[in-house]
Amino acid sequence: MTRRPHGQRPTIEDVARRSGVSRSTVSRVINGEPKVRAEVVEEVRRVIAELGYVPNQAARQLVTHRTGAVAVVADQPDGRLFLDPFFDCLLRGIRRELARHGAQAVLLFLDEPDDLARVADYLGGGHVDGAILFSLHPGGRLHGMTDRLDIPAVFGGRPLLRDGDTVRAHPYVDGDNRGGARQAVRHLVSLGRRRIATVTGPHDQEHSAAERLAGYRDVLPDAPPELVERADYTRQGGARAMTALLDRCPDLDAVFAASDLMAAGALDVLRERGRRVPDDVAVVGFDDLTEIAESTDPPLTTVHQDVAEMGRLLARLLFDPATEPAAVVVPTRLTVRASA
Amino acid sequence: MTRRPHGQRPTIEDVARRSGVSRSTVSRVINGEPKVRAEVVEEVRRVIAELGYVPNQAARQLVTHRTGAVAVVADQPDGRLFLDPFFDCLLRGIRRELARHGAQAVLLFLDEPDDLARVADYLGGGHVDGAILFSLHPGGRLHGMTDRLDIPAVFGGRPLLRDGDTVRAHPYVDGDNRGGARQAVRHLVSLGRRRIATVTGPHDQEHSAAERLAGYRDVLPDAPPELVERADYTRQGGARAMTALLDRCPDLDAVFAASDLMAAGALDVLRERGRRVPDDVAVVGFDDLTEIAESTDPPLTTVHQDVAEMGRLLARLLFDPATEPAAVVVPTRLTVRASA
Repeated sequence: MTRRPHGQRPTIEDVARRSGVSRSTVSRVINGEPKVRAEVVEEVRRVIAELGYVPNQAARQLVTHRTGAVAVVADQPDGRLFLDPFFDCLLRGIRRELARHGAQAVLLFLDEPDDLARVADYLGGGHVDGAILFSLHPGGRLHGMTDRLDIPAVFGGRPLLRDGDTVRAHPYVDGDNRGGARQAVRHLVSLGRRRIATVTGPHDQEHSAAERLAGYRDVLPDAPPELVERADYTRQGGARAMTALLDRCPDLDAVFAASDLMAAGALDVLRERGRRVPDDVAVVGFDDLTEIAESTDPPLTTVHQDVAEMGRLLARLLFDPATEPAAVVVPTRLTVRASA
Repeated sequence: MTRRPHGQRPTIEDVARRSGVSRSTVSRVINGEPKVRAEVVEEVRRVIAELGYVPNQAARQLVTHRTGAVAVVADQPDGRLFLDPFFDCLLRGIRRELARHGAQAVLLFLDEPDDLARVADYLGGGHVDGAILFSLHPGGRLHGMTDRLDIPAVFGGRPLLRDGDTVRAHPYVDGDNRGGARQAVRHLVSLGRRRIATVTGPHDQEHSAAERLAGYRDVLPDAPPELVERADYTRQGGARAMTALLDRCPDLDAVFAASDLMAAGALDVLRERGRRVPDDVAVVGFDDLTEIAESTDPPLTTVHQDVAEMGRLLARLLFDPATEPAAVVVPTRLTVRASA
């Protein structure tokens, strides 16, 4: 790695000069925008690594309270976030921390076709001091927007490009999805379970779902494909997946569901089918949303994430990025209740 | 009523002059702010009626798209609105209509203690072109704020003062809560039911809940108090209320629950207690949120409100107040399914 004299940090201009491309091309590569040739992407990334360049945006600090407001932008093509108790809890953490800094959360949803352009105009129009962005899909619509804005931004959830790389221009906060899934499946193994199925989230679309499936496979690399059923993070989806798994593998003795809602749906089906939980089938969920996990029958053993703390960290990264690393992965732990 | 020459509309200055008070006192009376002596309130209201004064704010039209954004502000001291399917549906209607006008919804919640001051600063800071306000409690915190702002505002739900009068400074959209409740109870009467109980919302705090109870009493003025049980618009609350009603009045043969969620909770309890629905006990809900009403067992007969249309009307009142009256009450109709 080439260091510059006097400990000066390399700039985007340095990367552009050494790569032989324009500043805006470097910016497009960093933000994962399309329409950059693969060779150029590769060369720019090589130079970024060589120079040890850290995108400037990440280090910009929100100090001037010009508007007293911070945007929370959620890209929800399926319109699901508003009713999601996980997102509600995250928002509470964000609002509490923003209030501590005297700032107000201003919530914008992307669902109508023109929303992206309007939201970009709004964020760029001096109406907010910073932005917290939720863009859960690889190559999501928000990824490329922020570099053109003159405000600091952080991502909730690791922002992934379509090729699996991470957007490097902004810090992010994520849960330890893979580690948490490993804890869940190891717990089931430790109970002596041998036919452990999993109900996954939409792992082809969302990073968190892909990571939770990867954690399952870390512990059970030889699990046959018939023990894996994809669902959509809803209770109904969890019930449908559990039905399919029982039809296909009547001898299964445990299920790891990648969310509490899906686990609740799985419990509904197990009860209908007369399977005792945990005696016949042990069930572990993910999230530990207490209003769900404590009210299922039996109460749910599940992977605990400190969701409110994740929200607080997101807000804190905007106000004080210097004291935090560019990526924060919040650890998980298992909450053991009666279902496993 | 005294008419002015040339059909000129009376102004707030006319009201102030004739009442012998300042313009700001008139404004405080219109917005129901405290700290105005009762005699002054009475005199100002008398003059307003005498002159036929219509507050100017109501007629102000949102034509200049300075920011392209409209605030949706929800006062939720109990933190409940975010996960409420009714509010989600309303918001969709608002967002769709705003998008048609090229505007973006910007959502702000009041829950932290300092939020009111910060939201007022934000709305007054030129960051939005208009505001849609949800303030469900009589004498709510948002009622007095809007007159000081230089943007048009509309209320979702009739904005009530503590003394039961309506805030007159702004148009509002509301459902026909009382008429809908009458439809529900009349339906139960027409089925031959004689002991008709009701599970109410928090009628001491929310106008909609008080109106739905009033509709029940319109049809059954002699219903004994033991047939009325107060709950909180949640499924758990509906279940608790149903349990109390069955313990108190085991001979009841029908229930009008003032929301679909409470009706779903009532159905849970009736099933547990071995009461057949509708044979032993007929049940009618309110709202007709299809994801709830169609998935209960049996499917729920309920009062239909066109919630998305209410959202669209709210947005339209901001852009085109001239073509709409100052208050829009959206009619209801009964959707008959299996539960009654």
